[in-house]
Amino acid sequence: MNKLFKFIKKRSSFFLFAAVTTLLASSANAQVYNNADSVLIRRLYDEVLQSEEMDANLRYLTSHIGARTAGSEKAQRAVDWLRVRMSGYHPDSIYLQPVMVPHWVRGEKEAASFTTGGRTIELDLSALGGSVGTDGTLTAQLVEVKSWAELSSLSDEQVRGKIVFFNRAMDAREVETFKAYLLAADQRAKGAIAASKKGAIGALIRSLTLAKDDYPHTGAMSYDAAVKKIPAAALSTNSADKLSEALKKDPALPVSLQMNCVQLPDVLSYNVIAELKGTTYPNEFVTVGAHIDSWDVGEGASDDGTGLVQAMEVLRVFKATGLKPARTLRVILYMNEEAGAHGGVEYAKQASTRNEHHVAAIESDAGGFAPRGFRIEASPEVTAKFKAWALLLAPYKAGDIQPQQRGVDLVPMKGTAKALLSLDCDDSRLFYIHHSALDTYDKINPREVAMGAGAMAAITAL
Amino acid sequence: MNKLFKFIKKRSSFFLFAAVTTLLASSANAQVYNNADSVLIRRLYDEVLQSEEMDANLRYLTSHIGARTAGSEKAQRAVDWLRVRMSGYHPDSIYLQPVMVPHWVRGEKEAASFTTGGRTIELDLSALGGSVGTDGTLTAQLVEVKSWAELSSLSDEQVRGKIVFFNRAMDAREVETFKAYLLAADQRAKGAIAASKKGAIGALIRSLTLAKDDYPHTGAMSYDAAVKKIPAAALSTNSADKLSEALKKDPALPVSLQMNCVQLPDVLSYNVIAELKGTTYPNEFVTVGAHIDSWDVGEGASDDGTGLVQAMEVLRVFKATGLKPARTLRVILYMNEEAGAHGGVEYAKQASTRNEHHVAAIESDAGGFAPRGFRIEASPEVTAKFKAWALLLAPYKAGDIQPQQRGVDLVPMKGTAKALLSLDCDDSRLFYIHHSALDTYDKINPREVAMGAGAMAAITAL
Repeated sequence: MNKLFKFIKKRSSFFLFAAVTTLLASSANAQVYNNADSVLIRRLYDEVLQSEEMDANLRYLTSHIGARTAGSEKAQRAVDWLRVRMSGYHPDSIYLQPVMVPHWVRGEKEAASFTTGGRTIELDLSALGGSVGTDGTLTAQLVEVKSWAELSSLSDEQVRGKIVFFNRAMDAREVETFKAYLLAADQRAKGAIAASKKGAIGALIRSLTLAKDDYPHTGAMSYDAAVKKIPAAALSTNSADKLSEALKKDPALPVSLQMNCVQLPDVLSYNVIAELKGTTYPNEFVTVGAHIDSWDVGEGASDDGTGLVQAMEVLRVFKATGLKPARTLRVILYMNEEAGAHGGVEYAKQASTRNEHHVAAIESDAGGFAPRGFRIEASPEVTAKFKAWALLLAPYKAGDIQPQQRGVDLVPMKGTAKALLSLDCDDSRLFYIHHSALDTYDKINPREVAMGAGAMAAITAL
Repeated sequence: MNKLFKFIKKRSSFFLFAAVTTLLASSANAQVYNNADSVLIRRLYDEVLQSEEMDANLRYLTSHIGARTAGSEKAQRAVDWLRVRMSGYHPDSIYLQPVMVPHWVRGEKEAASFTTGGRTIELDLSALGGSVGTDGTLTAQLVEVKSWAELSSLSDEQVRGKIVFFNRAMDAREVETFKAYLLAADQRAKGAIAASKKGAIGALIRSLTLAKDDYPHTGAMSYDAAVKKIPAAALSTNSADKLSEALKKDPALPVSLQMNCVQLPDVLSYNVIAELKGTTYPNEFVTVGAHIDSWDVGEGASDDGTGLVQAMEVLRVFKATGLKPARTLRVILYMNEEAGAHGGVEYAKQASTRNEHHVAAIESDAGGFAPRGFRIEASPEVTAKFKAWALLLAPYKAGDIQPQQRGVDLVPMKGTAKALLSLDCDDSRLFYIHHSALDTYDKINPREVAMGAGAMAAITAL
């Protein structure tokens, strides 16, 4: 037995103790304890990291309520539950802000198939949110395109009466998967309009995910009043590949499509708002929010269950730590981010009508993964101020301030609030589950959600 | 319908296109393209991010081989498969390096229970790696301690003939969960020795996880030749809480324990090593590694299946991109990291015997989560060099260079290799699955593993 071996044989103790000694020596430096702000932040994080309340909230929301499309009965149940839950944290006031929202329903699960070599192949698909149905079975040939240029190059004759199959994949080479998403999401957002303009009678879109699997990913789409509304659905990536393969062998292959979705009349719904009165500037507001609604598949766990429980957690930890905000803190749980941000628009409208002074509007809607910091939209001066504050968040790995905030509910507050900030998370995993049946509680890590809530509470306090 | 509303109603297109325009404008800046090194790194990442090979490897390893404790038949199957798999990437040479490893087996699943109020409560537990068995059923009273001081304060009489129950939880307030782990892992590493010194006949240790669940987490433990070897096992956190609760009511409560594990004679096993000959300095080495063995629960997916496939991927992408290394690249898949790093010790011994010049030794053994950069152990000059290179990895979110490398297999190379580097990942999720039945493929995200492999390939190339 050589010397090295003896040395390493005790490595479980050696390695541990060496590491522990070093880290104890360095932890005082690693975390900033040297002023009141950092002590405050440490207190907020301590409360969040040691509490099981937020995780219990997310479990309840996902298992007892689950998916909650705007306008649905479950969305109303979510509103009721969120109101009761936040009341339990004893804010100074809590109220519902009425907002009319669209009410789209999927109806009986959609189906699509094609027959080749005597075998019928079923496709996994999901109607896009807001799509019209097929009114029975629609059977048509396909035109597969991978770019807008390819679609433009086709004559109306080549497209008329067919279904356009948008099969451009998310680019895996993009470091930020969110960028890859944005660069492919135009197919989902505008595909039906572009296809209809050329006389197509339907649109199928490759799901926006980096995974190769059988889960279709739905999401918002749009129509144009000037062109006919045609049904649009997302295909799972495996189904898209299968279909593309089959079309190579037989370009004239007909596909049958059945979608039973329908847009019902608008419904009265609500934003849920809780307030902690500001001690010094009660008429200045800092808002912290997330959205209540989700798509109707999965449990709306990551999008945006995590954001909801984080926003509520900000209220809870302010109360639990006895922190009294100088400016009024408003926790806003928005209704219907997914299909038009009606809640966000209504909130901004009311804020503007009342001439309210908003210092900052913060949202968490990035999936609830390990936080990195915030994305900001503000003047250079205000941005600089947040960058300075963010130094205090660096020890918590949330100190990165980047441009381009991504909270859709905050967009209507542009120009009204001095700063718009969205929590920024590592997005590696987001598009594997986003808007699909995979968006369930078991994909969530409570530690990551807690670190995000800590960051939200800290930036709010600052 | 007010102006804001119209504005937001088109948000699915508005928001997307605004964002896309901005990101297209900025992406050229966001990624560094301005010299040969960054072009090279981009090429390596492109290859990794677009290939499905590495994910297929991990699927195969976890589903067809699964858990593979050192000395087991499955560990040998892993060696054989890894050798064949790497041969397929056509290295200049590939060989097995013999190494004797311990062979510990769990035997029939362990069991523990206590009876209170006429009801028998079963506990979820897992023998610690290397523990002796109980030789039938061991029934004894418990002494619960939460600190070493508490144990020291007890007289030998108070401990003799009892089982010491180490119930100190990982501290959730630690930002780095790895630190929280290290600060609690001393119980697992030294608990049996300390308990035995005081005459205890067994040790139960609270699992090292932040989760409250029913999964026990095993891991390495040590004995001291001077004291009697006593059986030691980890309790799930739920079981630990249940037991602690019961002891409050009845401190004299006896617990029955049955562990069937046994240490068999050492077994001949292997490190698997593949080489790409250096074009300029063939006698200088850069090594990239991970460990083959895992604990016998779960599938060894995160620990260290992800590291294994990442290390192999470095070889594959070097070949696929036609990159010929200036120094000889050695991919080393180590045997038996978990129970004493025998493979790492053997490699270091051989390298030292042959007087080989090692420039850098790199390992991936941090779970395969989103990479942040590397942890380094090297002279200040060498560290500075790596920090400069790491700037090129910043656009890939892997540019953070921190002290204290964590690759256990690299420890024996200290003093031999100029730099020891371990891939550093976000560790939020690690201890939820670490060394437990939860360490399975479905917890892994292929995108995160790919980003890690890209970072490994890039740092190796640099």
